[in-house]
Amino acid sequence: MWILAEPSFEPTKQHHKETIFTIGNGYLSTRGAFEEGYPNDRRATFIHGVFDDAPIVVTELANAPDWLATQIVLDGEKFSLASGTVLAYRRELDLRTGVLRREVRWQSPQGRAATIIFTRFASLADQHLLALRCEIIPEFDGQVELRSAINGQTDNEGLLHWRPIAQGQLADGTVFLRTRTRKSGIELALTMRVSGSDTATTTFWDVENVPTLQQVYQAQAGVPIVVTKFVGVATSRDDANPLELAHRHLQAATGWDEALAAQQQVWAKEWERCNVEIEGDEEADLAVRFSIFQLLIAAPRHDPRVNIGAKTLSGFGYRGHAFWDTEIFMLPLFIYTAPDIARNLLDYRYLTLPAARAKARAAGYEGAWYAWESADSGEEVTPTWVPDFHDKKKLARVWTGDLAIHISSDVAYAVQQYWQATGDDAWYIERGAEIVLDTAKFCAARAEWLNDRGCYGYTDVIGPDEYHDHVNNNAYTNLLAQWNLRAALETLAWLDQHAPQKAAELRQRLDLTPERLQHWQTVAEKMCVNVSPDGLIEQFDGFFKLKDVNLADYEPRTKSMHEIFGIEGANEYQAIKQPDVLMLQYLLREHYSDSQIRVNYNYYTPRTDHTYGSSLGPPIQAIVACQMGDVAEAYEHFIRAARADLRDVRGNAGDGIHAASAGGVWQAVVFGFGGLRVHPDGSWDIQPRLPQHWQRLTFRFTLRGKTYTVTCYPDGRYTTA
Amino acid sequence: MWILAEPSFEPTKQHHKETIFTIGNGYLSTRGAFEEGYPNDRRATFIHGVFDDAPIVVTELANAPDWLATQIVLDGEKFSLASGTVLAYRRELDLRTGVLRREVRWQSPQGRAATIIFTRFASLADQHLLALRCEIIPEFDGQVELRSAINGQTDNEGLLHWRPIAQGQLADGTVFLRTRTRKSGIELALTMRVSGSDTATTTFWDVENVPTLQQVYQAQAGVPIVVTKFVGVATSRDDANPLELAHRHLQAATGWDEALAAQQQVWAKEWERCNVEIEGDEEADLAVRFSIFQLLIAAPRHDPRVNIGAKTLSGFGYRGHAFWDTEIFMLPLFIYTAPDIARNLLDYRYLTLPAARAKARAAGYEGAWYAWESADSGEEVTPTWVPDFHDKKKLARVWTGDLAIHISSDVAYAVQQYWQATGDDAWYIERGAEIVLDTAKFCAARAEWLNDRGCYGYTDVIGPDEYHDHVNNNAYTNLLAQWNLRAALETLAWLDQHAPQKAAELRQRLDLTPERLQHWQTVAEKMCVNVSPDGLIEQFDGFFKLKDVNLADYEPRTKSMHEIFGIEGANEYQAIKQPDVLMLQYLLREHYSDSQIRVNYNYYTPRTDHTYGSSLGPPIQAIVACQMGDVAEAYEHFIRAARADLRDVRGNAGDGIHAASAGGVWQAVVFGFGGLRVHPDGSWDIQPRLPQHWQRLTFRFTLRGKTYTVTCYPDGRYTTA
Repeated sequence: MWILAEPSFEPTKQHHKETIFTIGNGYLSTRGAFEEGYPNDRRATFIHGVFDDAPIVVTELANAPDWLATQIVLDGEKFSLASGTVLAYRRELDLRTGVLRREVRWQSPQGRAATIIFTRFASLADQHLLALRCEIIPEFDGQVELRSAINGQTDNEGLLHWRPIAQGQLADGTVFLRTRTRKSGIELALTMRVSGSDTATTTFWDVENVPTLQQVYQAQAGVPIVVTKFVGVATSRDDANPLELAHRHLQAATGWDEALAAQQQVWAKEWERCNVEIEGDEEADLAVRFSIFQLLIAAPRHDPRVNIGAKTLSGFGYRGHAFWDTEIFMLPLFIYTAPDIARNLLDYRYLTLPAARAKARAAGYEGAWYAWESADSGEEVTPTWVPDFHDKKKLARVWTGDLAIHISSDVAYAVQQYWQATGDDAWYIERGAEIVLDTAKFCAARAEWLNDRGCYGYTDVIGPDEYHDHVNNNAYTNLLAQWNLRAALETLAWLDQHAPQKAAELRQRLDLTPERLQHWQTVAEKMCVNVSPDGLIEQFDGFFKLKDVNLADYEPRTKSMHEIFGIEGANEYQAIKQPDVLMLQYLLREHYSDSQIRVNYNYYTPRTDHTYGSSLGPPIQAIVACQMGDVAEAYEHFIRAARADLRDVRGNAGDGIHAASAGGVWQAVVFGFGGLRVHPDGSWDIQPRLPQHWQRLTFRFTLRGKTYTVTCYPDGRYTTA
Repeated sequence: MWILAEPSFEPTKQHHKETIFTIGNGYLSTRGAFEEGYPNDRRATFIHGVFDDAPIVVTELANAPDWLATQIVLDGEKFSLASGTVLAYRRELDLRTGVLRREVRWQSPQGRAATIIFTRFASLADQHLLALRCEIIPEFDGQVELRSAINGQTDNEGLLHWRPIAQGQLADGTVFLRTRTRKSGIELALTMRVSGSDTATTTFWDVENVPTLQQVYQAQAGVPIVVTKFVGVATSRDDANPLELAHRHLQAATGWDEALAAQQQVWAKEWERCNVEIEGDEEADLAVRFSIFQLLIAAPRHDPRVNIGAKTLSGFGYRGHAFWDTEIFMLPLFIYTAPDIARNLLDYRYLTLPAARAKARAAGYEGAWYAWESADSGEEVTPTWVPDFHDKKKLARVWTGDLAIHISSDVAYAVQQYWQATGDDAWYIERGAEIVLDTAKFCAARAEWLNDRGCYGYTDVIGPDEYHDHVNNNAYTNLLAQWNLRAALETLAWLDQHAPQKAAELRQRLDLTPERLQHWQTVAEKMCVNVSPDGLIEQFDGFFKLKDVNLADYEPRTKSMHEIFGIEGANEYQAIKQPDVLMLQYLLREHYSDSQIRVNYNYYTPRTDHTYGSSLGPPIQAIVACQMGDVAEAYEHFIRAARADLRDVRGNAGDGIHAASAGGVWQAVVFGFGGLRVHPDGSWDIQPRLPQHWQRLTFRFTLRGKTYTVTCYPDGRYTTA
């Protein structure tokens, strides 16, 4: 299944569909809004790194001028699905090539009919190029008018980020718009060329902020009118003269067929390294490919100063901010299929080390404390106060930016995972090691000696399960910090051996005295954790004393347990947003025996809000279930994750793609059902556990420069190539 | 001086000039931005009552689509003062007629020169009609292009309030735009007709949200091109079909000369009743007329559901919210010169009684507690939290909405003042009395018996001097409440005699039992106030114990003492934002002897932040100084108020007209220098005290239906007619 299809027009699902029909090229993405517009659409194009200040949310990706804008007027009647009659409709996103196509047969209120076909893509071959083609087959003789515009009138849910600077028409007919973000001062230039038949009269409408090319055709019934619109796009982040750059890329686009061929070629290469096929389950087959596609179009390829937001570039949710979602949920796909992209994403964390150090320092700690929400600079951009859901005049405090300290260890974990999978020693020596060391420094600094417990721990934190805040000794946080400290010590030892000069430099620069290293050792050794004799880990101090809850009692429900209990209330119950302890065991798999995982799985699974809690939970739940051999249950969690966007099971897909879930879907297939395990030494093994109805699962992965294709069968057999 | 002139173009004063060149007609106002635009202009049109939700500030007047939008293109070069050469420039606002005229001689970068004259007004004869004329006298033979638009791309400092609904061209050539506020759902329709010479080619550019009429002229050097643009405007607050209404008013506009003649005629009538003339002081003469003009164009004439914001309709400051500024500072002008407008403004308070009652009830009190900041519904719209000036991630609490209780008595005071001046018993019986009674009910409910003091008082309030919050027994608050309670008791007695049925109805409906009335009497009698034997009133409990301060020590300064001390710091000093106690003595003049006023004047004057404190202070200070016979000092305060906007002495005129100051300027001239005193029985006397250099002061006022013209001379003589 390569085609995501919408066989009929469903206006009530408008925002959901806009999200899933997003196209992009790692530089920008454009939501699947209609070229001609539709009432209340959330049309948006987000460009990596183009952030601007915003109240409450600190900073957000500015919704760029609309390059789609195309009005079609049939003998004076404006084409719109909000009027007239839709006689036929089909929309298709071809995941193989990233091309979106919509074919509509429409009859105007006055009775003029035409078939209109829009095709668009964001070029993966040239990230500064966007292409749109419009084909009109009128069923009448008369006048057909096209108005192709760059529409600078875009906003972020009511907030304006742009102030136009200049616009006009260049000597070669190219129309341009230059505009600038209001606070951050990033300049954006868009250039447009519209090619149609020679019979058209073309007029430039030089209207402020909406430069438009109007074309008038004398149309004949049955004779297609084909118009191609190329748009060049560049910002002052790319070049001091973005207009010149955008113009150059526009000029380089010679024609539709050539641009499309280049697109197909580059995408074919992309799929060669990361495709997954599932035979016997079309929904799963499409969903995993869709998940990969969404991450591929969101992943920056040439710019290490940006990261993937929790909602990719596909919606207004989370404002383009990046979370641990990148490192723990999305990165494995890239590490194991597209390591160049993975390195680019980790470079972002390296480049934002200064901000992470500043955050730690401001809180009174040494080392690097990454921002819970990170945008362009790496500064903490988690909102501190948000309007209260129930009373807009009141405010609710958001604590994650202050208390979610596990982010630093998450980043270090991803760095090591990348290193192990790629064997990229040069990068690790140059950049990765410093991240692991400086996050360890923070872990040690933030740890407190708890006299009453006789161990080191972390008080007043939030773990992955955000239903409980201000908790002490969250197991995930503590044990990942422990891992981080040990990884740092091993890193230093390794550096001493393999890059002694770098080791010396880092010892000096990061003040890694023997006393400090000894302290790391001690903190790691004496890290608090509450484990029962049979291996049950308490999520945090006192969790088992909270009121127990039977989530089944609340079914059927359409709200999270957080909304049902309220912020205060949720803290009093054992209901959790995501399987905090299972996450930990998944990441540190080799530390736990199967029986230890089983006891935790059995305890936490019924207490987890799988349906409306975190979308990060289900894929991990699926993997752990696979490891437990509960494949049917695993499939249930997996398919819930797979449907997060395609079926909008959480009702919020309109805000953008659930990127962590998409990354988790890939992990669930490869690490869960496929049973791939990669060991620290670079060796790997496979233990397939396919759902009953899957006839075949094929996936690829790249390890230390070599790409493998694995095909698994229901009986547990597999082949590699 | 009828002409406010700007003899040369001063781009650095752009926002200041936009404010003072605001035109309006009581229905809407439009800031003096240029028709063709200018970088970073704050172009805005505000329509009374067209509020929309906004974060933090709760609700704000939505900046309406721009009706000025006119681009002029000379042989391909766009006219803009930001390019080319300004060869001559003059802008004039004719206060006599409300017509704004700008004449520019400009040379394009390529050397084409032309004189361009823009003339605009908002019709006072037809509040739904706006008129703009553009005269172009080219100095070259070539093509002159005009693009006349309704530009729906307007925002409130980055926040978008509008979502366009429809646009197009009607059969008669009228261009229209229908748009709607995003949250409050108010529909606005604008219609446009552009008339020029028959030689023009006119094309309709149907660009989304910017419907534009393009006209192309073959121009000859020296031959003027004259284009008239009429715009009709109406909202769903006026009519269920605003487009139809806006179209009707546009159709009614037959031509420029006719519309201008109507404008001149209506304005002439307006000035007949309220003009003030000062001979020997051109600056003062212009300033007082300018102040009156700004209040006249902001005052609603046909809609009792709206009020005048603290910055009129001329800027983004205070978001169109109304404060006590209306009742205490602006209303006297209307009460004594345009009582129909005064009544309309008081009707707003009557119609928002339900919201005032709800506010009191929500706080646990009976009666009517008016909102400190009031918009469309009368609900409290004071922001509760605003971003901290020094650290945007932090928030500062705004307390006025919770603690400034004197607003209720201020409203009651204005109601009584209107009644006394007009003798409008019918209105008082029907509406005014209920306000006075229900605010008194609140005053009694909010008062606490302070056992240690043995009196009734108000703890935890903010008085007019906002440098001190959370104070107890603010003298202004206490004594105006005392006045309110007594006025209510007198009102009831008067109603018993003159409108017994209404009295009975109100007794019943407001639950005015004998016990309650007795309680009012007691609270009023035993109201706490700290007065020294010589009459010095302590502004609030403990004020005299605060650190004293010599404001001269901080000169020269360009910041308020609030900014210098900080919010906490300001609470520790005797520095005050405005003369709280003097305000009280001004309002309750007959309660105090001259010597009592003198002692307070001498104490508080040197402790008041006259320059950067409240702009409400100087005019009151001027009046009290006049009453003390300190005319030279009075003039100093008066001229400071007179310059608040014209010279932008506080540096914030760009945010809009200081409406209270404008009202205070009129009061300072009439009640201060003119020495008019009106007594409760409707009798009045005059005691002129003109500044030395004034040769003559003439003012008009209307009392109980009769209009008087008073002419005062420096020697204290005066004539009335």
